[in-house]
Amino acid sequence: METLDLGLETEKLLKWLGEYGQAEGGGVSRFLYTPEWVKAQQGLEELMRKEGWAVSYDSIGNLFGRVEGTEYKNETIMTGSHVDTVKNGGLYDGQYGIIAGIVALKYLKEKYGPPLRNVEVVSFAEEEGSRFPYVYWGVKNLFGVARREEVAELVDNQGVSFVEAMRQAGFDFKPETEGVRTDVKAFVEAHIEQGGVLEIEKKAVGVVNHIVGQRRFKIEITGEANHAGTTPMKYRKDALYAAGSIICAVIDMAKVYGDPLVATVGKIDVTPNIGNVVPGKAVFTLDARHTDAYLLTAFTDAAIAAMKAIADRSGVGIQIDMFMDVAPVPMDVRIVEILERQCRKNGLNFKEMHSGAGHDSQIMAQFVPTAMVFVPSHKGISHSPAEYTAPQDLGEGVKALIGALYELAYSETP
Amino acid sequence: METLDLGLETEKLLKWLGEYGQAEGGGVSRFLYTPEWVKAQQGLEELMRKEGWAVSYDSIGNLFGRVEGTEYKNETIMTGSHVDTVKNGGLYDGQYGIIAGIVALKYLKEKYGPPLRNVEVVSFAEEEGSRFPYVYWGVKNLFGVARREEVAELVDNQGVSFVEAMRQAGFDFKPETEGVRTDVKAFVEAHIEQGGVLEIEKKAVGVVNHIVGQRRFKIEITGEANHAGTTPMKYRKDALYAAGSIICAVIDMAKVYGDPLVATVGKIDVTPNIGNVVPGKAVFTLDARHTDAYLLTAFTDAAIAAMKAIADRSGVGIQIDMFMDVAPVPMDVRIVEILERQCRKNGLNFKEMHSGAGHDSQIMAQFVPTAMVFVPSHKGISHSPAEYTAPQDLGEGVKALIGALYELAYSETP
Repeated sequence: METLDLGLETEKLLKWLGEYGQAEGGGVSRFLYTPEWVKAQQGLEELMRKEGWAVSYDSIGNLFGRVEGTEYKNETIMTGSHVDTVKNGGLYDGQYGIIAGIVALKYLKEKYGPPLRNVEVVSFAEEEGSRFPYVYWGVKNLFGVARREEVAELVDNQGVSFVEAMRQAGFDFKPETEGVRTDVKAFVEAHIEQGGVLEIEKKAVGVVNHIVGQRRFKIEITGEANHAGTTPMKYRKDALYAAGSIICAVIDMAKVYGDPLVATVGKIDVTPNIGNVVPGKAVFTLDARHTDAYLLTAFTDAAIAAMKAIADRSGVGIQIDMFMDVAPVPMDVRIVEILERQCRKNGLNFKEMHSGAGHDSQIMAQFVPTAMVFVPSHKGISHSPAEYTAPQDLGEGVKALIGALYELAYSETP
Repeated sequence: METLDLGLETEKLLKWLGEYGQAEGGGVSRFLYTPEWVKAQQGLEELMRKEGWAVSYDSIGNLFGRVEGTEYKNETIMTGSHVDTVKNGGLYDGQYGIIAGIVALKYLKEKYGPPLRNVEVVSFAEEEGSRFPYVYWGVKNLFGVARREEVAELVDNQGVSFVEAMRQAGFDFKPETEGVRTDVKAFVEAHIEQGGVLEIEKKAVGVVNHIVGQRRFKIEITGEANHAGTTPMKYRKDALYAAGSIICAVIDMAKVYGDPLVATVGKIDVTPNIGNVVPGKAVFTLDARHTDAYLLTAFTDAAIAAMKAIADRSGVGIQIDMFMDVAPVPMDVRIVEILERQCRKNGLNFKEMHSGAGHDSQIMAQFVPTAMVFVPSHKGISHSPAEYTAPQDLGEGVKALIGALYELAYSETP
C-alpha cells in the first residue's frame, strides 16, 4: 500500500471522527463524557469491531481495540492517543494518534496476519483538561495514578460534577482504580507536532527522543503608580519598565542558552494600565522548558537571580512564584532506535527531535517503554480549526508507526 | 494674618465646597451641569455675594466674583480655577484655585481696600472632560475658542446630550460665544502640583514657568502567536519581547535626555495574553512631555527611529500613530518674576518649576499674561479622594497669590 493511500485513508477517517462534536467555528469541541464524546467512542468501537478486533472499555471510559497475539498472551504493544479535544479544536490533535493506530493495525493484520504479542489501539478518554481542570485522566487510569479524591471534587463551568458527568456517559465513579495494566510492554503514540519545526525544515516525520520538562512562574513587580506628566524620571518606580527589562534579559539569556531551551513571557497585566499613569504594578508569567532537568533548573535559577537583581536596581519589589514544575521525560532509547531504523528502511523523510508540549506518552513513559512519532503541523498551528497536516505526511507517520509496531509485536525478541 | 490661619481658612472652605457632589468613596464627583455642579456654583455665588462682590455668570456657566477697580475700569486681574472634578476626585484639584482666589481677594480688600484694577475670581465651569469628552470648555469660552459645533454633538454615558445637560443647569446652548473677554490683563491660577516634586524637595510653593507640551503615541507591534513549547527561540516573532525592548530603549533614552523630559509607557495590551503562547501582538502607548517644543520633537523623532530599528531587528511589524500633539506653553515672564519677588519678600519656601500636567492656564496663556502657583500634593496623588495638602502649604500658596494680585491690581504700573 502506498504511503499516500495510507495518508488519504487516515484523512478520511479523521474527517469522519471529527463529525462527532463539530463546533460552530468549523472545529471540533468534544469534551470528556459529553454526548459527542460518547458517540465518538461508540463510533470508534463500531469501526474496530467491524475489523474483528476485541473491543472493551475500562471503568472510566478508555476504549481499547485489540488483536490477540498468538504467542505472548500476557504481552501487549499499545498505540493510540486521546479522543477529547480543546474547545473548537482541530481534526488532528489526539484524533491522529487513534486513527493512525487503527490504520496501522488494520494494515499489519491484513499483510502479516495475527501478531505474536497482543496489539491494542487505545482511545484515551481525556488528556486536555478542557471540561474539568484535570489533565491525563485517561492514561493515568491505566496505572492507578489519577488522584481520584481530587477529581471527585471537580465541577465543570455548567455546574455539573465530574461524578455526575461520568455517570451520564455510562460510567460509575469508583474510589479505586480497577484493573491496573501490567501487560503493556511498549507504547508508541503518533501525534501532530504542534510546532513548526518539521514544516520549516521540510521533514515529514519526527522521532521524539524527549518530552520537555516545564517550569512556570508568576512574577509580580510592585512599583508606584504616578502621574506621567508631573513625576520626573528620577522619582519613578515604573513597574512596566522593570518588567520590560526583565523580559528582555530573560529572553536574551534563553537565546544564549540555546536549543532545546525555550523561555516565554506570554502574559502580562499592568495596573492601572492607563496611558498617562506610570505603571504601579506588572504581573507576568515565565514558561521555561528543556529536555534536561539539570539544565532547566540551572536556567530558571539564573533567570530568578537576574530578575531579582533587575528589580533591586530598579527600586521595585518583586515576588516570584513557581506554580508548575514538571520533570522532562526521556523516550525509550530502544523504541526510538526501532523507529529510526524503520524510517530509514522505508525511506521516510524524518528527523529526531524533542517534544515541547506534553502528551499522554509522558505519563505512559513512567510505566512502560514509550516513544512518539510526530507529523508536521502546518504553520505550527494546533488547538484550532486551522490544524492541518498533508495526507502524504499523515501517511509517512502511519508508515513509521507500522514499522515500529511490526518490530515490537511480530518479532520474537524485538 | 498668619500663613497658617490663611491655610486653615482655605481648608475649611475646601471641605465646605467638597460637600457638593460628595461621592460614596469619600471623594467628590461633580460633573459639568449636574445638580451638584449647579449647587456648588450657587454656593460660591452666595459666598462671594456676602463679601459684597459683584457676581455674574457668563452664558455657559462660568462664575465670576468681582471687586471693581477704582482707576482702570477696563483692566481686570483674574484668578481662579475649575469647579468640576473627575469621578471620585479629591478636595484640592480645581477647588483650591477657586478658594485660594476667594481667600486672597477677601484678604486684599480687607487690608488694602478696593484695587486700582478690577480683580475677579473665576469658577470655571469645566476643565476635566469627565462627563463629556471635551476639555477646557470653561476657559475656552472666555475667548470664543471652544468648538461649539463639536460640543453640540456630545452625549454623556447616560445618553444625555451636552445641549440638554446645559439646559437642565439653566443655560441655553448658543451657536456663538457671547461676550469675549478683552479686559483681562493677567491671570494667576493656584493649583495643587499633582506630582511629588515639592514634597520630595520639601518646598511649599512652586512658581510655574512652563506648562509642558505633550505628544502621545499608540504603537502596535505585530509578531506571530506560537506555541510556547514547540517553537524554538530562533523561529519566534515575539511581539512582547520586541515591545519590552522598545520600552526599555525609549525610557533609557528619556533618562539620558534628562529633566524636564518625561516619557511614559503606561498601557500595554498583549494578544492572546496566555502564559504558554508566544505573544502575537502588543499594543502600547507612549506619552512624552517637555517644556521645549523643539526638544520634545527631537526626542520623539529619535524614539520613533529607535522603535522602528528595534522592530526591524526583531522581525516584527510596527505601526506608530501620534494621537495627541499639544505644544508647550510658557508662562508670562513678568508674572513669574512678580511671584518670585513676592515669595522672597514673604519668606516663602518656594522653587521655580514646570507643570507636567495641563491646566486652564495653558489656554489662558494663549490670550493673556498668565502664571501659576503650585502647592504640594502629598505623595504626588491627585484625582483621588487621597489628595492632601497641609494647611501651612495651602497658606503659603495663598500668600504667594496675594502678593502677585497685589502687585498686579494695586500698583500703577505693575
